[in-house]
This record gives sequence, C-alpha cells and structure tokens, in this order.
Amino acid sequence: MSEVPPVLDRKLARELDRRASEELGIPSIVLMENAGRGAADLLCRLGINGLVLICCGRGNNAGDGFVVARHLDLRGYPVKVALWADPATLTGDADVNYHILLRSGIPIEVFLTESDSERFAEECRQAAWIVDALLGTGSAGKPRPPLNRAIEAMNASGVPILALDLPSGLDCDTGEAFNPTVRATYTCTFAAWKKGFLAPNAKQYLGQVHVADIGIPRKLLQEVLGHAK
Amino acid sequence: MSEVPPVLDRKLARELDRRASEELGIPSIVLMENAGRGAADLLCRLGINGLVLICCGRGNNAGDGFVVARHLDLRGYPVKVALWADPATLTGDADVNYHILLRSGIPIEVFLTESDSERFAEECRQAAWIVDALLGTGSAGKPRPPLNRAIEAMNASGVPILALDLPSGLDCDTGEAFNPTVRATYTCTFAAWKKGFLAPNAKQYLGQVHVADIGIPRKLLQEVLGHAK
Repeated sequence: MSEVPPVLDRKLARELDRRASEELGIPSIVLMENAGRGAADLLCRLGINGLVLICCGRGNNAGDGFVVARHLDLRGYPVKVALWADPATLTGDADVNYHILLRSGIPIEVFLTESDSERFAEECRQAAWIVDALLGTGSAGKPRPPLNRAIEAMNASGVPILALDLPSGLDCDTGEAFNPTVRATYTCTFAAWKKGFLAPNAKQYLGQVHVADIGIPRKLLQEVLGHAK
Repeated sequence: MSEVPPVLDRKLARELDRRASEELGIPSIVLMENAGRGAADLLCRLGINGLVLICCGRGNNAGDGFVVARHLDLRGYPVKVALWADPATLTGDADVNYHILLRSGIPIEVFLTESDSERFAEECRQAAWIVDALLGTGSAGKPRPPLNRAIEAMNASGVPILALDLPSGLDCDTGEAFNPTVRATYTCTFAAWKKGFLAPNAKQYLGQVHVADIGIPRKLLQEVLGHAK
C-alpha cells in the first residue's frame, strides 16, 4: 500500500462528490442518503433515550440532517428538526429532502433571527441528543448571526451533540475553531477525516470521530485520497 | 394502534414505491440504495468469510444486488457479480447502478444461456455467500430458461443464500414455490413482509426473514400497510 494520508480538505471533499456524480454516475442525492443514514446508524449504536433535535442550516449539511431525521423517525425514535433558515431559500438535494420531511409529518420548527435563540435554547435543553447540521465543509470563517447564537445555545445546553461531517464553526482545512464553534461529543464525518481534524486544537471540538461511508466506491475514494496533501 | 397486517402484496409493493416517489418526492434510486445497503448491513451482521457472489437478473431486484456489491466492496469484502442478462437490456435505476459498478472496477461476469450454467455452478461452489437478486416481487410464474438453471445451480451448491426481497421463484402473493425456487437461508425483504410469506409452504424457501427499511417515511408506510388485505 502506498502512503495515503486519509484526509480530505475542502477542495478534495468537493472533488470527491463531483467525480462520484460526473464520472461514476452516482446521483448526489444518493450520497446524501448514505451520509444521513450512516449518521442515524451511529446514533442508534450510541443509544437514544429521548428526543433527537436536528439543527439544520440551509446547505447540503442541512440535507444530511433531514435524512437523519427521516431514518430515525422511521425507526421509531422521536425527532424534531430545528431549521435555521427560511425554507424558501433551500435548494437542490437539501430542498428535496426538506419536502420529503414536510410531507411525512415530521415536526419542523423554523428559527430565523437572533430573537428566536431563546426559544431555540429551550428546545435544546429538552433534547436527549442534538445533531449539528448547521454548517458543512463548504463553510469558512466566523459563524454569522443568527447561527452564532444557535451554536452558543447548543453548547450551553449541556446536551450531547453529534456533529455531521464537522462541528459548525471549525475550519475544514486548518482546524481553526472560530468563535463560536460547536463542541461536539461525537463527529460523524463522511467518507474520510477532514484535514483540519489533525490540528491539535481541533480535538476538543470534534469529540470522538467516526467515519461514515457515503457509498462512493473504493476505487474513486482511493484515487482522490491519493491526491491528498 | 389499529390492526394493521404488516404484509404487502405485489400491487401494494409497487404502490408503495410509486407513492414514495410521486407523492413524497423520494427518487426511486434512493429507495434502491437503501434496499441494497440494508441487505449489505445484514450480511455483515451475519458474518462474511470469503467471496460474496451476487446473482442478478435484469430487473430492479438486480439493481438492489448491484448496490449490495458496491457497499460490500467499499467495506473491504471480496465480491463478484454474476449477471444473468445482456447488460444492454438493463434499464432505469438498475442500469445506473450497473454502470457505477462497471466504472468502479468491481468484477462482473455475464451469463446468458443455459450452456453457461456449468460455469456458473462452479462460481457458486467457490462462494462463501450467494445473494439471490434474480427475480423480484414483479415476477410471476415458473422461472424461465436460463434462470431456472441458475436457480438449480445456486441450490445445488450448498452455499448459504441470502435472497433479496423474496427467493426467486416464490410467488409474492400466493407463496407458491414454482419449480425451481431458490431455497434461501435468509431473506432480506424490503419495507415489510410479503403476503406470500404467510403461506405455510413458503417457510422452507424463505429461511429466516429480516425486514430492511428502504427509507420510506413511517407515515406513508402505515397508510399503505393500512390498505393491505
């Protein structure tokens, strides 16, 4: 085996998804389904005793969160989606999965402004698990209002947090933790570790890291990881 | 809870898929992905020590089999697909998944006529597991050549068989076992039990039955199962 550093930076993570779709013909929504299902599997193994509050932004990370909600509901766990976005602004696969939830009667509560953060904080405190699907690998820089307030409330709740792909606020490439960054108990990262996870400072935000595959064939994964720096 | 018989007949199974796609907006390829991944999960739990030979026909059941192959390969298990169809005749989601396999370098061997059945029988004997993805719920009546020969070879191999959705040759609605019918060790059925499984004679062909969800939200599943006879 060659020395393949098993990490993806932001660019390679995007490249992996793009090549899976364009070269192999895997629809991007299939990758999202695998990501969300893998995270749901992990939560089930960790143990769920009460409400799972799935906190979503407006990007693909939110879409992964919607899939988690559907699979957990299907398995009989109580779930609620806290959507920090105007539903009308959702696009692509995230929008498809949002509408599946909507038509399936799975509870979704929308939070839009900083003034909603106390109501959100109360939701957080009621949960047995919080899933962080606010910001994904595409995000960079300090979380902007109102998401900064959402992150603060999640951290302040004392409830265990599972971050999807990476904790919101953590930089995918450098591992820099902007203020605020989600302090996850577990991070379910997709396909491979992210480069920033190797930064010594990142550990305290990541918690325990699990890798969930997203159905991308081994051959492509190894090709792309072989180009990782 | 109302008395909901948890079985699907051929018509309801099709109806469930159709409503999931048309009413909820779940792409049919997402359902196929969940089916195949669920079956791969089951095989992993049962234990795999050697080659998994995935025997596919030309329908959607074959597509589920292709997904099983991709997920097992991704998890590092040795797999081979035995395709009892001219690849040019594959359509829809099965065709999409066939091409993903092809581009991923996963071994696929094509069998076309009865004269290929001895070569196929030898492949069967080499396997640690056989996955039966020849015929699905849509099929009815006696398996026609050359699939009858394929089924006979699978049964004669003495290798444990996991059937996807139902054993090939078993009637979804009546449980009648046409000659020949796959004698499965395990059946991984999708979404819910099939009506024919309740026939006393079916048990010996089904082996142990596991239900794998296919990501269809609970609300729709209950609605459709509520109409089951």
